[in-house]
Amino acid sequence: MTITVVLGHPYPRSFNHAIAKHVVEALQTAGHAVAFHDLYAEGFDPLLTGHELATDDVRTNALAEQHCRELQLADGIVVIHPNWWGMPPAIVKGWIDRVFRPGVAYQFAGDDDGSGVPAGLLRARAAVVLTTSNTPAEREQDIFGDPLETIWRNCVFGFCGVALVVRRNFGVIAGSSRQQREQWLAEAAATALRVLGQAR
Amino acid sequence: MTITVVLGHPYPRSFNHAIAKHVVEALQTAGHAVAFHDLYAEGFDPLLTGHELATDDVRTNALAEQHCRELQLADGIVVIHPNWWGMPPAIVKGWIDRVFRPGVAYQFAGDDDGSGVPAGLLRARAAVVLTTSNTPAEREQDIFGDPLETIWRNCVFGFCGVALVVRRNFGVIAGSSRQQREQWLAEAAATALRVLGQAR
Repeated sequence: MTITVVLGHPYPRSFNHAIAKHVVEALQTAGHAVAFHDLYAEGFDPLLTGHELATDDVRTNALAEQHCRELQLADGIVVIHPNWWGMPPAIVKGWIDRVFRPGVAYQFAGDDDGSGVPAGLLRARAAVVLTTSNTPAEREQDIFGDPLETIWRNCVFGFCGVALVVRRNFGVIAGSSRQQREQWLAEAAATALRVLGQAR
Repeated sequence: MTITVVLGHPYPRSFNHAIAKHVVEALQTAGHAVAFHDLYAEGFDPLLTGHELATDDVRTNALAEQHCRELQLADGIVVIHPNWWGMPPAIVKGWIDRVFRPGVAYQFAGDDDGSGVPAGLLRARAAVVLTTSNTPAEREQDIFGDPLETIWRNCVFGFCGVALVVRRNFGVIAGSSRQQREQWLAEAAATALRVLGQAR
Protein backbone atom coordinates (compact mmCIF):
# COMPACT_ATOMS: atom_id res chain seq x y z
CA MET A 1 0.00 0.00 0.00
CA THR A 2 0.96 3.62 -0.53
CA ILE A 3 0.67 5.56 2.70
CA THR A 4 1.03 9.28 3.30
CA VAL A 5 2.30 10.26 6.75
CA VAL A 6 2.06 13.93 7.73
CA LEU A 7 3.68 15.44 10.83
CA GLY A 8 3.03 18.94 12.16
CA HIS A 9 5.29 19.97 15.04
CA PRO A 10 7.99 22.67 15.10
CA TYR A 11 10.44 21.05 17.52
CA PRO A 12 12.62 18.24 16.09
CA ARG A 13 13.10 16.59 19.48
CA SER A 14 9.36 16.51 20.22
CA PHE A 15 7.44 13.39 21.16
CA ASN A 16 5.44 13.96 17.95
CA HIS A 17 8.65 13.46 15.98
CA ALA A 18 9.34 10.25 17.89
CA ILE A 19 5.84 8.99 17.05
CA ALA A 20 6.36 9.79 13.38
CA LYS A 21 9.70 7.97 13.31
CA HIS A 22 8.24 4.84 14.89
CA VAL A 23 5.17 4.83 12.64
CA VAL A 24 7.15 5.35 9.42
CA GLU A 25 9.66 2.62 10.32
CA ALA A 26 6.91 0.16 11.22
CA LEU A 27 5.00 0.81 8.00
CA GLN A 28 8.15 0.49 5.89
CA THR A 29 9.17 -2.72 7.66
CA ALA A 30 5.74 -4.12 6.82
CA GLY A 31 6.41 -3.41 3.15
CA HIS A 32 4.36 -0.27 2.62
CA ALA A 33 5.52 2.59 0.41
CA VAL A 34 5.56 5.60 2.73
CA ALA A 35 5.52 9.25 1.66
CA PHE A 36 6.58 11.08 4.83
CA HIS A 37 6.12 14.82 5.23
CA ASP A 38 7.49 16.79 8.16
CA LEU A 39 5.56 19.94 7.23
CA TYR A 40 7.78 22.31 9.23
CA ALA A 41 10.99 20.75 7.90
CA GLU A 42 9.87 20.97 4.29
CA GLY A 43 8.69 24.58 4.68
CA PHE A 44 5.07 23.96 3.80
CA ASP A 45 3.23 27.27 3.28
CA PRO A 46 -0.16 26.90 5.01
CA LEU A 47 -1.87 29.96 3.51
CA LEU A 48 -4.59 29.26 0.98
CA THR A 49 -4.59 32.23 -1.41
CA GLY A 50 -7.52 34.16 -2.78
CA HIS A 51 -6.56 32.88 -6.24
CA GLU A 52 -6.76 29.27 -5.10
CA LEU A 53 -10.09 29.93 -3.39
CA ALA A 54 -11.59 31.50 -6.48
CA THR A 55 -10.21 29.09 -9.07
CA ASP A 56 -9.44 25.80 -7.27
CA ASP A 57 -6.01 26.11 -8.88
CA VAL A 58 -3.07 25.08 -6.70
CA ARG A 59 -0.48 25.13 -9.46
CA THR A 60 0.89 28.35 -8.03
CA ASN A 61 2.60 26.29 -5.34
CA ALA A 62 4.65 23.24 -6.35
CA LEU A 63 4.69 21.68 -2.89
CA ALA A 64 0.93 22.01 -2.40
CA GLU A 65 0.42 20.50 -5.85
CA GLN A 66 2.67 17.55 -4.93
CA HIS A 67 0.65 17.03 -1.74
CA CYS A 68 -2.58 17.03 -3.78
CA ARG A 69 -1.23 14.32 -6.12
CA GLU A 70 -0.02 12.19 -3.22
CA LEU A 71 -3.27 12.56 -1.30
CA GLN A 72 -5.22 11.35 -4.33
CA LEU A 73 -3.01 8.28 -4.72
CA ALA A 74 -2.72 7.30 -1.05
CA ASP A 75 -4.29 4.01 0.09
CA GLY A 76 -3.96 5.15 3.69
CA ILE A 77 -3.23 8.39 5.57
CA VAL A 78 -1.57 9.03 8.94
CA VAL A 79 -1.63 12.46 10.57
CA ILE A 80 0.45 13.25 13.67
CA HIS A 81 0.19 16.52 15.61
CA PRO A 82 -0.25 18.02 19.08
CA ASN A 83 -3.62 19.28 20.33
CA TRP A 84 -3.22 23.05 20.34
CA TRP A 85 -6.41 24.86 21.36
CA GLY A 86 -8.58 21.89 20.38
CA MET A 87 -7.21 22.08 16.85
CA PRO A 88 -4.12 21.05 14.89
CA PRO A 89 -1.23 23.54 14.63
CA ALA A 90 -1.69 26.14 11.87
CA ILE A 91 0.68 24.29 9.54
CA VAL A 92 -1.56 21.19 9.61
CA LYS A 93 -4.69 23.33 9.30
CA GLY A 94 -3.15 24.90 6.21
CA TRP A 95 -2.29 21.47 4.79
CA ILE A 96 -6.03 20.74 4.97
CA ASP A 97 -6.98 24.15 3.55
CA ARG A 98 -4.64 23.91 0.56
CA VAL A 99 -4.50 20.17 -0.19
CA PHE A 100 -8.04 18.90 0.48
CA ARG A 101 -9.31 20.82 -2.52
CA PRO A 102 -12.40 20.46 -4.70
CA GLY A 103 -11.53 18.01 -7.46
CA VAL A 104 -8.84 16.45 -5.25
CA ALA A 105 -10.58 15.36 -2.06
CA TYR A 106 -14.27 16.02 -2.76
CA GLN A 107 -16.58 17.30 -5.47
CA PHE A 108 -19.96 18.97 -5.45
CA ALA A 109 -22.40 18.05 -8.23
CA GLY A 110 -22.37 20.41 -11.20
CA ASP A 111 -25.55 22.20 -10.21
CA ASP A 112 -24.60 22.49 -6.53
CA ASP A 113 -23.52 25.94 -5.29
CA GLY A 114 -21.54 24.44 -2.44
CA SER A 115 -24.32 24.14 0.12
CA GLY A 116 -25.14 20.50 -0.72
CA VAL A 117 -23.54 17.19 0.14
CA PRO A 118 -20.39 16.48 -1.88
CA ALA A 119 -18.96 13.21 -3.12
CA GLY A 120 -15.73 12.18 -1.39
CA LEU A 121 -12.93 11.62 -3.90
CA LEU A 122 -10.17 10.17 -1.73
CA ARG A 123 -8.97 6.71 -2.68
CA ALA A 124 -7.86 5.99 0.91
CA ARG A 125 -10.23 3.78 2.83
CA ALA A 126 -8.59 4.39 6.22
CA ALA A 127 -6.94 7.20 8.15
CA VAL A 128 -5.12 7.21 11.48
CA VAL A 129 -4.86 10.38 13.55
CA LEU A 130 -2.30 10.39 16.37
CA THR A 131 -2.44 13.39 18.69
CA THR A 132 -0.70 14.43 21.88
CA SER A 133 -2.00 16.52 24.72
CA ASN A 134 -1.22 17.83 28.19
CA THR A 135 -4.89 18.06 29.13
CA PRO A 136 -6.24 15.13 31.17
CA ALA A 137 -8.79 13.13 29.13
CA GLU A 138 -11.72 13.86 31.43
CA ARG A 139 -11.11 17.62 31.36
CA GLU A 140 -10.70 17.53 27.56
CA GLN A 141 -14.07 15.83 27.20
CA ASP A 142 -16.03 17.69 29.87
CA ILE A 143 -14.72 21.25 29.47
CA PHE A 144 -13.55 21.41 25.86
CA GLY A 145 -15.66 18.71 24.17
CA ASP A 146 -12.58 17.30 22.41
CA PRO A 147 -13.27 19.02 19.07
CA LEU A 148 -10.42 17.15 17.34
CA GLU A 149 -12.57 14.04 17.34
CA THR A 150 -15.35 15.44 15.16
CA ILE A 151 -12.94 17.60 13.17
CA TRP A 152 -10.94 14.66 11.83
CA ARG A 153 -13.70 12.05 11.80
CA ASN A 154 -16.56 14.07 10.32
CA CYS A 155 -15.44 17.49 9.08
CA VAL A 156 -12.32 16.32 7.19
CA PHE A 157 -12.06 12.60 6.44
CA GLY A 158 -15.78 11.77 6.54
CA PHE A 159 -16.47 14.70 4.19
CA CYS A 160 -13.94 13.30 1.72
CA GLY A 161 -15.20 9.71 1.78
CA VAL A 162 -12.70 8.03 4.11
CA ALA A 163 -14.86 5.48 5.92
CA LEU A 164 -12.51 4.25 8.63
CA VAL A 165 -10.99 6.90 10.87
CA VAL A 166 -9.17 5.88 14.04
CA ARG A 167 -7.82 8.52 16.38
CA ARG A 168 -5.63 7.86 19.38
CA ASN A 169 -4.62 10.64 21.74
CA PHE A 170 -1.51 10.21 23.87
CA GLY A 171 -1.26 12.10 27.16
CA VAL A 172 -0.69 13.62 29.53
CA ILE A 173 2.77 14.02 27.94
CA ALA A 174 4.15 16.45 30.54
CA GLY A 175 5.69 14.51 33.38
CA SER A 176 5.22 11.09 31.73
CA SER A 177 7.83 8.41 32.39
CA ARG A 178 10.23 7.11 29.76
CA GLN A 179 8.61 3.70 30.09
CA GLN A 180 5.15 5.21 29.48
CA ARG A 181 6.37 7.05 26.40
CA GLU A 182 7.97 3.92 24.97
CA GLN A 183 4.69 2.11 25.43
CA TRP A 184 2.88 4.92 23.61
CA LEU A 185 5.36 4.76 20.73
CA ALA A 186 4.79 1.03 20.35
CA GLU A 187 1.05 1.56 20.50
CA ALA A 188 1.19 4.31 17.86
CA ALA A 189 3.05 2.03 15.43
CA ALA A 190 0.76 -0.92 16.15
CA THR A 191 -2.35 1.21 15.64
CA ALA A 192 -1.15 2.47 12.25
CA LEU A 193 -0.28 -1.05 11.12
CA ARG A 194 -3.55 -2.54 12.31
CA VAL A 195 -5.90 0.12 10.94
CA LEU A 196 -4.19 0.60 7.58
CA GLY A 197 -3.93 -3.17 7.20
CA GLN A 198 -7.73 -3.31 7.37
CA ALA A 199 -7.96 -0.91 4.45
CA ARG A 200 -6.56 -3.26 1.83
CA MET B 1 -13.07 50.94 24.99
CA THR B 2 -10.12 49.53 23.10
CA ILE B 3 -11.25 46.77 20.76
CA THR B 4 -9.16 44.42 18.63
CA VAL B 5 -10.82 43.23 15.42
CA VAL B 6 -9.15 40.36 13.55
CA LEU B 7 -10.14 39.21 10.06
CA GLY B 8 -8.90 36.02 8.37
CA HIS B 9 -9.95 35.69 4.73
CA PRO B 10 -7.73 35.76 1.63
CA TYR B 11 -10.15 37.40 -0.82
CA PRO B 12 -10.57 41.19 -0.47
CA ARG B 13 -14.07 41.13 -1.99
CA SER B 14 -15.29 38.42 0.36
CA PHE B 15 -18.38 38.74 2.53
CA ASN B 16 -16.01 38.37 5.50
CA HIS B 17 -14.33 41.62 4.44
CA ALA B 18 -17.74 43.31 4.20
CA ILE B 19 -18.56 42.13 7.72
CA ALA B 20 -15.25 43.48 9.04
CA LYS B 21 -15.82 46.87 7.37
CA HIS B 22 -19.30 47.22 8.86
CA VAL B 23 -18.21 46.13 12.33
CA VAL B 24 -15.17 48.42 12.44
CA GLU B 25 -17.19 51.43 11.25
CA ALA B 26 -19.96 50.79 13.77
CA LEU B 27 -17.50 50.45 16.64
CA GLN B 28 -15.61 53.60 15.63
CA THR B 29 -18.86 55.57 15.24
CA ALA B 30 -19.76 54.52 18.78
CA GLY B 31 -16.50 56.02 19.99
CA HIS B 32 -14.40 52.91 20.50
CA ALA B 33 -10.69 52.78 19.67
CA VAL B 34 -10.39 49.95 17.16
CA ALA B 35 -7.21 48.08 16.26
CA PHE B 36 -8.14 46.33 13.02
CA HIS B 37 -6.01 43.50 11.59
CA ASP B 38 -6.64 41.95 8.20
CA LEU B 39 -4.20 39.08 8.82
CA TYR B 40 -3.72 38.25 5.13
CA ALA B 41 -3.21 41.89 4.15
CA GLU B 42 -0.63 42.50 6.87
CA GLY B 43 1.28 39.30 6.01
CA PHE B 44 0.88 37.66 9.39
CA ASP B 45 3.10 34.56 9.66
CA PRO B 46 1.00 31.85 11.35
CA LEU B 47 3.80 29.42 12.16
CA LEU B 48 4.73 29.09 15.82
CA THR B 49 8.41 28.21 15.91
CA GLY B 50 10.20 25.60 18.00
CA HIS B 51 12.05 28.46 19.71
CA GLU B 52 8.79 30.15 20.71
CA LEU B 53 7.38 26.84 21.94
CA ALA B 54 10.43 26.12 24.10
CA THR B 55 10.97 29.62 25.47
CA ASP B 56 7.61 31.46 25.26
CA ASP B 57 9.60 34.18 23.53
CA VAL B 58 7.86 35.88 20.61
CA ARG B 59 10.37 38.69 20.23
CA THR B 60 11.69 36.98 17.11
CA ASN B 61 8.64 38.30 15.25
CA ALA B 62 7.73 41.99 15.55
CA LEU B 63 4.17 41.57 14.25
CA ALA B 64 3.39 38.67 16.60
CA GLU B 65 4.81 40.71 19.48
CA GLN B 66 2.58 43.67 18.54
CA HIS B 67 -0.44 41.37 18.49
CA CYS B 68 0.48 40.08 21.96
CA ARG B 69 0.64 43.63 23.35
CA GLU B 70 -2.69 44.58 21.78
CA LEU B 71 -4.41 41.42 22.95
CA GLN B 72 -3.32 42.12 26.52
CA LEU B 73 -4.68 45.69 26.38
CA ALA B 74 -7.95 44.97 24.57
CA ASP B 75 -11.22 45.55 26.43
CA GLY B 76 -13.04 43.56 23.77
CA ILE B 77 -12.16 41.24 20.88
CA VAL B 78 -13.92 40.56 17.57
CA VAL B 79 -12.84 37.69 15.31
CA ILE B 80 -14.22 37.29 11.77
CA HIS B 81 -13.53 34.26 9.57
CA PRO B 82 -15.15 31.61 7.37
CA ASN B 83 -15.83 28.09 8.64
CA TRP B 84 -13.28 25.96 6.79
CA TRP B 85 -13.38 22.30 7.83
CA GLY B 86 -15.00 23.14 11.16
CA MET B 87 -12.07 25.38 12.01
CA PRO B 88 -10.79 28.86 11.25
CA PRO B 89 -8.44 29.31 8.27
CA ALA B 90 -4.79 28.50 9.03
CA ILE B 91 -3.87 32.18 9.33
CA VAL B 92 -6.37 32.63 12.21
CA LYS B 93 -5.27 29.34 13.79
CA GLY B 94 -1.71 30.64 13.70
CA TRP B 95 -2.79 33.95 15.24
CA ILE B 96 -4.06 31.88 18.18
CA ASP B 97 -0.94 29.67 18.26
CA ARG B 98 1.49 32.61 18.29
CA VAL B 99 -0.40 35.36 20.12
CA PHE B 100 -2.35 33.54 22.85
CA ARG B 101 0.88 32.71 24.64
CA PRO B 102 1.70 31.80 28.22
CA GLY B 103 2.26 35.05 30.09
CA VAL B 104 0.08 36.92 27.59
CA ALA B 105 -3.27 35.14 27.55
CA TYR B 106 -2.96 32.58 30.35
CA GLN B 107 -0.55 31.35 33.00
CA PHE B 108 -0.06 28.06 34.78
CA ALA B 109 0.94 28.16 38.44
CA GLY B 110 4.68 27.93 39.06
CA ASP B 111 4.58 24.29 40.13
CA ASP B 112 2.24 23.21 37.28
CA ASP B 113 3.79 21.24 34.43
CA GLY B 114 1.08 22.34 32.01
CA SER B 115 -1.50 19.65 32.77
CA GLY B 116 -3.42 21.72 35.31
CA VAL B 117 -5.96 24.51 35.05
CA PRO B 118 -4.40 27.87 34.17
CA ALA B 119 -5.40 31.38 35.13
CA GLY B 120 -6.75 33.47 32.26
CA LEU B 121 -4.82 36.69 31.81
CA LEU B 122 -6.86 38.54 29.21
CA ARG B 123 -8.25 41.89 30.25
CA ALA B 124 -11.14 41.60 27.78
CA ARG B 125 -14.44 40.66 29.40
CA ALA B 126 -16.20 39.95 26.09
CA ALA B 127 -15.48 38.49 22.67
CA VAL B 128 -17.58 38.32 19.52
CA VAL B 129 -16.94 35.64 16.89
CA LEU B 130 -18.55 36.17 13.48
CA THR B 131 -18.30 33.23 11.09
CA THR B 132 -19.65 32.42 7.63
CA SER B 133 -20.58 29.08 6.17
CA ASN B 134 -22.12 27.35 3.19
CA THR B 135 -23.28 24.39 5.26
CA PRO B 136 -26.95 24.52 6.34
CA ALA B 137 -27.22 24.94 10.13
CA GLU B 138 -28.94 21.60 10.71
CA ARG B 139 -26.31 19.65 8.76
CA GLU B 140 -23.50 21.55 10.57
CA GLN B 141 -24.97 20.55 13.92
CA ASP B 142 -26.03 16.98 13.14
CA ILE B 143 -23.16 15.78 10.93
CA PHE B 144 -20.21 17.92 12.00
CA GLY B 145 -21.13 18.91 15.58
CA ASP B 146 -20.23 22.55 14.87
CA PRO B 147 -16.77 22.39 16.50
CA LEU B 148 -16.23 26.15 16.12
CA GLU B 149 -18.68 26.70 18.96
CA THR B 150 -16.64 24.88 21.62
CA ILE B 151 -13.33 25.93 20.05
CA TRP B 152 -13.94 29.64 20.52
CA ARG B 153 -16.14 29.50 23.64
CA ASN B 154 -14.22 26.93 25.71
CA CYS B 155 -10.86 26.03 24.15
CA VAL B 156 -9.71 29.58 23.38
CA PHE B 157 -11.56 32.41 25.13
CA GLY B 158 -12.83 30.43 28.12
CA PHE B 159 -9.31 29.10 28.70
CA CYS B 160 -7.99 32.68 28.78
CA GLY B 161 -10.61 34.07 31.14
CA VAL B 162 -12.99 35.83 28.75
CA ALA B 163 -16.37 35.27 30.38
CA LEU B 164 -18.76 36.49 27.69
CA VAL B 165 -18.36 34.89 24.25
CA VAL B 166 -21.04 35.43 21.62
CA ARG B 167 -20.77 33.69 18.26
CA ARG B 168 -23.02 34.34 15.29
CA ASN B 169 -22.72 32.28 12.13
CA PHE B 170 -24.02 33.73 8.88
CA GLY B 171 -25.14 31.37 6.13
CA VAL B 172 -25.79 29.80 3.78
CA ILE B 173 -23.75 32.48 1.97
CA ALA B 174 -23.78 30.80 -1.45
CA GLY B 175 -26.88 31.87 -3.34
CA SER B 176 -27.98 34.38 -0.69
CA SER B 177 -29.79 37.52 -1.86
CA ARG B 178 -28.31 41.01 -1.63
CA GLN B 179 -31.10 41.94 0.76
CA GLN B 180 -30.27 38.97 2.99
CA ARG B 181 -26.58 39.87 3.05
CA GLU B 182 -27.32 43.50 3.94
CA GLN B 183 -29.44 42.27 6.82
CA TRP B 184 -26.56 40.06 8.00
CA LEU B 185 -24.12 42.97 7.82
CA ALA B 186 -26.41 45.11 9.97
CA GLU B 187 -26.83 42.24 12.42
CA ALA B 188 -23.04 41.69 12.63
CA ALA B 189 -22.45 45.33 13.53
CA ALA B 190 -25.33 45.39 16.00
CA THR B 191 -24.10 42.20 17.69
CA ALA B 192 -20.58 43.58 18.14
CA LEU B 193 -21.93 46.86 19.57
CA ARG B 194 -24.36 45.15 21.92
CA VAL B 195 -22.01 42.48 23.29
CA LEU B 196 -18.95 44.68 23.69
CA GLY B 197 -21.10 47.38 25.24
CA GLN B 198 -22.01 44.91 27.99
CA ALA B 199 -18.34 44.41 28.77
CA ARG B 200 -17.75 47.90 30.13
